[in-house]
Amino acid sequence: MAKIVQCVPNFSEGRDLDKIEKIVDPLRGKEGVKLLNYEADKDYNRVVVTVIGEPEAVKNAVVESICVASELIDMTKHEGQHSRMGATDVVPFIPIKEMSMDEAVELAKSCAKDVWEKHNVPVFLYEKAASKPERENLATVRKGQFEGMSEKLKDPNWHPDFGENKIHPTAGITAVGARMPLIAYNINLDTTNIEIANKIARCIRHSNGGFRFCKAGPVEIPERNIVQVTMNLTDYTKTSMYRVFETVRMEAKRYGVNVMGSEVVGLVPMEAIADTAAYYLGLENFDMDKILETGLME
Amino acid sequence: MAKIVQCVPNFSEGRDLDKIEKIVDPLRGKEGVKLLNYEADKDYNRVVVTVIGEPEAVKNAVVESICVASELIDMTKHEGQHSRMGATDVVPFIPIKEMSMDEAVELAKSCAKDVWEKHNVPVFLYEKAASKPERENLATVRKGQFEGMSEKLKDPNWHPDFGENKIHPTAGITAVGARMPLIAYNINLDTTNIEIANKIARCIRHSNGGFRFCKAGPVEIPERNIVQVTMNLTDYTKTSMYRVFETVRMEAKRYGVNVMGSEVVGLVPMEAIADTAAYYLGLENFDMDKILETGLME
Repeated sequence: MAKIVQCVPNFSEGRDLDKIEKIVDPLRGKEGVKLLNYEADKDYNRVVVTVIGEPEAVKNAVVESICVASELIDMTKHEGQHSRMGATDVVPFIPIKEMSMDEAVELAKSCAKDVWEKHNVPVFLYEKAASKPERENLATVRKGQFEGMSEKLKDPNWHPDFGENKIHPTAGITAVGARMPLIAYNINLDTTNIEIANKIARCIRHSNGGFRFCKAGPVEIPERNIVQVTMNLTDYTKTSMYRVFETVRMEAKRYGVNVMGSEVVGLVPMEAIADTAAYYLGLENFDMDKILETGLME
Repeated sequence: MAKIVQCVPNFSEGRDLDKIEKIVDPLRGKEGVKLLNYEADKDYNRVVVTVIGEPEAVKNAVVESICVASELIDMTKHEGQHSRMGATDVVPFIPIKEMSMDEAVELAKSCAKDVWEKHNVPVFLYEKAASKPERENLATVRKGQFEGMSEKLKDPNWHPDFGENKIHPTAGITAVGARMPLIAYNINLDTTNIEIANKIARCIRHSNGGFRFCKAGPVEIPERNIVQVTMNLTDYTKTSMYRVFETVRMEAKRYGVNVMGSEVVGLVPMEAIADTAAYYLGLENFDMDKILETGLME
């Protein structure tokens, strides 16, 4: 079976459609590379691109896009609501199929090396590719943002993983890493009481003693007269959708509140959905090879 | 998105591996065509081939295989336990993705036309492609088998849909049709009492008042000290896996018997699995485009 990687580069341009098209263009029409979508946000002044395909081909195409971004985006003039430190701000590689996290980490390092050697943009490795624990968290890496990076790099603890001890004058510095696919998942509660959603979120999220790979918080949906527990599941192979769902249902009972349903925001890996069906049907000896479409992707 | 069809031709050769390879060979290495597997059965003297891909390409490759089979297999010398009427016995086309049943029917008709015009093998259309109600059921169409077909074709009601009023002297006659993907699904009951499995099977199967697209029966699994309700779901879009599973659980309660789990035999379409997960999680606005891998198959 073919290895499949996903890459979700974030570029610091969300307003100039012409520039956005030029940045995205290297990801189109290449053998082994599929551009899934890109969403520009004007307030953030940022575009999030999703591309998928054969690992080496995806990496090479993304390096090309990073090159275009470093030529077109001048960070000294960039304004936007989202934290950022480079023309290409962050580049996560996500193993999707027949690929280990170690392989995704190697791909991230190879990408980082190319970005520095070919385009003179320095790189921090982050998350699973991080060279030390304090670089795992992107927010920590990016702290100081573009404007504070020249100062930050003077600290010997913050020497880039690739590149010299200074940022690119207009393209800044980029974070390249590897991580599991993330599932954005919301569960709807039949109440307007946000405090109940808050209490349930605290039961299931890692930071308060809940599941290891669950981030959660409460949200009001006033137009539907309900509240939501909104979540990011950061490793669905270890913190399952069905386990989180059933736990929320269990906790909601405590308040006499019904779970009305749930929703996936964005994309969800097939394996997470198949694992959910396998749990509820008690499927024996079930794996992805039992799914007809798996054969189509070999 | 690309249209995907599955085709499962059955050829009347299950013993001579050299001939089987020659029959299967046209399905290999063709653009847009993927040979998923083939299983020869010596007792049946029959090989069942599963191929999938772009409709026109799959049809053309299958027509080539049918040609090879009609050259290599002499039905006047064929012996086997399975009913059969032709060197290529039956050719169902199954719409898998972005394809309607009407399109699968058109593909079946186009295949049937080619088989007759290029290889002089007459064809009955069956199931969804049938030209009259009495030709929908394959067993009815095949009744009389190869040996009785010359006589059967003299009946004006059994003029082939393509071809003249006589069979090919050595390749016989072929059934070409269109149908939904079939899910072979078994549910395990924690009892050795086969009568309970039998009673539950009668509740859920169409022939006794159960679900429209469910065939079911009881099976003993002595090595595990359990019984099974064994099923074919012939249209999972209308008779869902979860609905059948929950109904079996409901009926089993009547006898104080637990449902231990279930199993899929062979392949299951992703949509059937996704629909199951969506039911149990109460997923709102969920469809196949939310699944990451769907983008890979476009």
